[in-house]
Amino acid sequence: MEAKKEIKLVNGVNVDQLFDTIELIKQKPEVAKFKFRATNKWADGTHNRATVKDFYGALAEDDSRDSMVFEIDEPPVLCGRNLGANPVEYLLTALSGCLTTSLVAHAAARGVRIKGVESRYEGDLDLRGFLGISEDVKVGYQNIRVYFKIDADISDDEKKELIEMAQKYSPVFNTITKSAPVSVRLDKE
Amino acid sequence: MEAKKEIKLVNGVNVDQLFDTIELIKQKPEVAKFKFRATNKWADGTHNRATVKDFYGALAEDDSRDSMVFEIDEPPVLCGRNLGANPVEYLLTALSGCLTTSLVAHAAARGVRIKGVESRYEGDLDLRGFLGISEDVKVGYQNIRVYFKIDADISDDEKKELIEMAQKYSPVFNTITKSAPVSVRLDKE
Repeated sequence: MEAKKEIKLVNGVNVDQLFDTIELIKQKPEVAKFKFRATNKWADGTHNRATVKDFYGALAEDDSRDSMVFEIDEPPVLCGRNLGANPVEYLLTALSGCLTTSLVAHAAARGVRIKGVESRYEGDLDLRGFLGISEDVKVGYQNIRVYFKIDADISDDEKKELIEMAQKYSPVFNTITKSAPVSVRLDKE
Repeated sequence: MEAKKEIKLVNGVNVDQLFDTIELIKQKPEVAKFKFRATNKWADGTHNRATVKDFYGALAEDDSRDSMVFEIDEPPVLCGRNLGANPVEYLLTALSGCLTTSLVAHAAARGVRIKGVESRYEGDLDLRGFLGISEDVKVGYQNIRVYFKIDADISDDEKKELIEMAQKYSPVFNTITKSAPVSVRLDKE
């Protein structure tokens, strides 16, 4: 009878799977190429709806997930009806998920056990950009501030190191702070 | 008896409110300063949860919305359990909502009536960045492609103009394509 291999979890992350993936990608870099997707359908006014389902990665299409639907709207002060979080709040949501996962996964890879992570996000937006009132005002976020609380038996300096790692390896953080090209075209029917 | 003023809706957007807001902001630019927020709490492994509720804008705090909670996770191929969309998918969700709202609102401001808007998003990510396998690989999205279908009684050139406007005025598009500074700190208790 073969001994069943115990799954090694650190911070709930299967670190054996993580290291196996890293080894595989070192040998076959194309395994690392992913394509993530979303679709959006306008409902009315500032209300629209995004759907996330399939993606490509690890050399295969994955269509196995149920559709995840996100309601997007503005508050009344911005001409909406509060039918969902607004787009710039979804951006903070994305950033929060990515920094947290990056922190927890890279801590796990280094064997650092985490008991809890909480963080808060605040971004400054000057609507004169969106409204086209001033060309001198940045249309996007002017600044985003993030504050982390980490519950772990490590020093503050070690917590700060985790926060540095989270930033270094987070795809959303790096997309926002280093920019990414976005091409927008009319769809050919 | 006073005549009740009819609300002027174009594409479901109250354009009178929109133009009143623009006039108010021209006189009082501080009305345009908004702060949007999110919080995040790690659950386990790659699963965490973001909450959106209050914001500051139009010279006041707004705490009137119910909390909106977003589950964030990775698919099994990325060490997760499919308990939510992943962070880079939330980023595409944010971009989709912002380009759509920007397109619809700026069309409304110009009196262009829209019957339908659909769009799709695809972003390329090379996980060698996140996994720290190669310093030469971009950690964030390498490219994002967006395709719009617009149902309106206008020419393809006019649709392309709407798409240009959507990009010019979208805060999320401009945050991603032009970058924004993000400071990440350990929270003082």
